[in-house]
Amino acid sequence: MSGAIRFTPIGLLRSGHTLAEETPIQPVYAQGAWGRAEVFPEYAEGLQDIESFSHVFLIYHLHLAAPAGLIVKPFLQDRERGVFATCHPGRPNAIGMSLVALLRREGHVLHLDGADFIDGTPLLDIKPYAARFHRIDRPRSGWHEEVDEQEAVRRGRRAP
Amino acid sequence: MSGAIRFTPIGLLRSGHTLAEETPIQPVYAQGAWGRAEVFPEYAEGLQDIESFSHVFLIYHLHLAAPAGLIVKPFLQDRERGVFATCHPGRPNAIGMSLVALLRREGHVLHLDGADFIDGTPLLDIKPYAARFHRIDRPRSGWHEEVDEQEAVRRGRRAP
Repeated sequence: MSGAIRFTPIGLLRSGHTLAEETPIQPVYAQGAWGRAEVFPEYAEGLQDIESFSHVFLIYHLHLAAPAGLIVKPFLQDRERGVFATCHPGRPNAIGMSLVALLRREGHVLHLDGADFIDGTPLLDIKPYAARFHRIDRPRSGWHEEVDEQEAVRRGRRAP
Repeated sequence: MSGAIRFTPIGLLRSGHTLAEETPIQPVYAQGAWGRAEVFPEYAEGLQDIESFSHVFLIYHLHLAAPAGLIVKPFLQDRERGVFATCHPGRPNAIGMSLVALLRREGHVLHLDGADFIDGTPLLDIKPYAARFHRIDRPRSGWHEEVDEQEAVRRGRRAP
């Protein structure tokens, strides 16, 4: 058994979302929603070359999420699923991951499209999306395949 | 500024890799390398339905990685890059992410192909790969596009 593991934010995520219930559930349903990753200046050097990638993974602390138990209802479907078979924010470790479009870098700030995170979210890591590592051509997407795309868009936007 | 954030392992990753320098750098270069995610029994219920996905993201603690500074040489290329433009393990927060093939579930154990992690790695989270969220059809992959696939395979396997 291992003990607690400690991480320290490398920056903050900024967006126009202040209410969880009006925040889109994934970047794909947040197109046109601006966001910024404001990396603390002491980590800025680590952003070098990132602007040559069109997409990045943000790894962050779901700082407002309440634990939801091990069985949850995903936002896209009214059926209970194991939490690890979903991206539900109420997870045993409140770690969020968003695959966003990187529009440009201005010094220690990344300008993003597809913000699906609440303003002020603590950022833990950034990893580039590399086609050779992250593009799976014909995945089986489990229960997602039961949800048609129109329904997914309608639920996923969570527009007020 | 935010303070430290604490997470607790939900399980351990098992593989045949015991030396960092002989561990493949990504699942795509570890095909045929067995791995297991042994989720602690108290979290097993959260795995329900995961077996219907062909691929999952593992989020884990790079518990043996030494900090490498903000400028690193990626394993695939002899040029210095900002650490956030790479998946180098020596990151400010030692968070690893692997997109692996899920072969089957046996209770609280996931059997995986493409293990690119060291035996005993503390597991923090599991998220399903959903085509609608995670498959980007024509990404720009930055400096990766300068590395031809043969060279990437040769370097990425890190076979002894």
